[in-house]
Amino acid sequence: MKKGYFITLEGPDGGGKSTQIELTTRFLQEKGYDVVCTREPGGTLSAEKIRAIVLDPDTPIYSLTETLLYLAARAEHIQGLIAPALEQGKVVICDRYSDSTLVYQGLVRGLGLEKVKALNDLVVDGLTPDLTILLDAEPNRLLLRRDTRGVTDRFENEGLAFQEKVRDGFVTLAKLEPERIKVVDALQGQAEVQEVIQKLVLELFK
Amino acid sequence: MKKGYFITLEGPDGGGKSTQIELTTRFLQEKGYDVVCTREPGGTLSAEKIRAIVLDPDTPIYSLTETLLYLAARAEHIQGLIAPALEQGKVVICDRYSDSTLVYQGLVRGLGLEKVKALNDLVVDGLTPDLTILLDAEPNRLLLRRDTRGVTDRFENEGLAFQEKVRDGFVTLAKLEPERIKVVDALQGQAEVQEVIQKLVLELFK
Repeated sequence: MKKGYFITLEGPDGGGKSTQIELTTRFLQEKGYDVVCTREPGGTLSAEKIRAIVLDPDTPIYSLTETLLYLAARAEHIQGLIAPALEQGKVVICDRYSDSTLVYQGLVRGLGLEKVKALNDLVVDGLTPDLTILLDAEPNRLLLRRDTRGVTDRFENEGLAFQEKVRDGFVTLAKLEPERIKVVDALQGQAEVQEVIQKLVLELFK
Repeated sequence: MKKGYFITLEGPDGGGKSTQIELTTRFLQEKGYDVVCTREPGGTLSAEKIRAIVLDPDTPIYSLTETLLYLAARAEHIQGLIAPALEQGKVVICDRYSDSTLVYQGLVRGLGLEKVKALNDLVVDGLTPDLTILLDAEPNRLLLRRDTRGVTDRFENEGLAFQEKVRDGFVTLAKLEPERIKVVDALQGQAEVQEVIQKLVLELFK
């Protein structure tokens, strides 16, 4: 069924995912690829409604509820957008996907990697990214950058210890799947990061 | 941990669940039991917000999304209300629970019992009702009753064929777990139904 390429960007907030997605999209479009940019949680109308509940700092929810809401948004996103685009041969670039759920809910919130992975596997039903770019950086150095942006959701309100757990979580996943998850130093200049990403993407397309 | 009793009522809309829950609650309260009445999806603030998305007829969602939203609401409900009440030794009476998800999403919407059960098992983590009352009736006879009520959500907009699948689904589950799920004829008079329920509940408490 799947004919396109599925690329995800992962890593902490403030690591430059959005910018790199924009640059990568422009690069691929100039090469003639049909690119779909999207993000999680979100990407479709219902998924955005779910996103609004999960990211609302005024509605505290349990970690398992949070996980299931992310998975609900993911199910919607896959069926409504990702899978159809891949079937049409498009390149789908997604800001966060399963790895974020495994890290934030499984490893950081403490539900356990095994339980969250079991739930996620039932939801994604084999739709794993072809390539995942992990924009990695030491949290204390990233926080310097983040301070210049507005704090907008519950994740961004967490402190340094939280961000260190997030970083460790992503690094752990990258070690488990080195073929798929490529670690890129997010503290390089934008152009340098983009160069590394372009190389990885072109390698994938070969 | 669990010291109270967990009782669920299941069956199609229009089968009299709400009335029987009211009557059963009054009966038990008069006997001195501390009773918590609740419903799914819902029961807590966040769960009610999730309920609003899932039951909104203007936001079509995929069956798997729907399932995960119900499970998200259930996770919230269990941790925020059901488990604490049971730990305090209360009797929790819940309008719909896992069996509804297995029937509506697994058997009727066609996701398959196995997949939905696997997801649900990860969420409820062993919190199964001590007793489930299935208020059962032939859908065409129930529809006569339902016509006198307002149509309010997407399930109630479905037709007779849908309701027949629902009925078959519940009956299938009751056959798989006859010890827990007790089938009660919903077309008897209110008083007769209540009498049967009272007997079943008192038997459970022995």
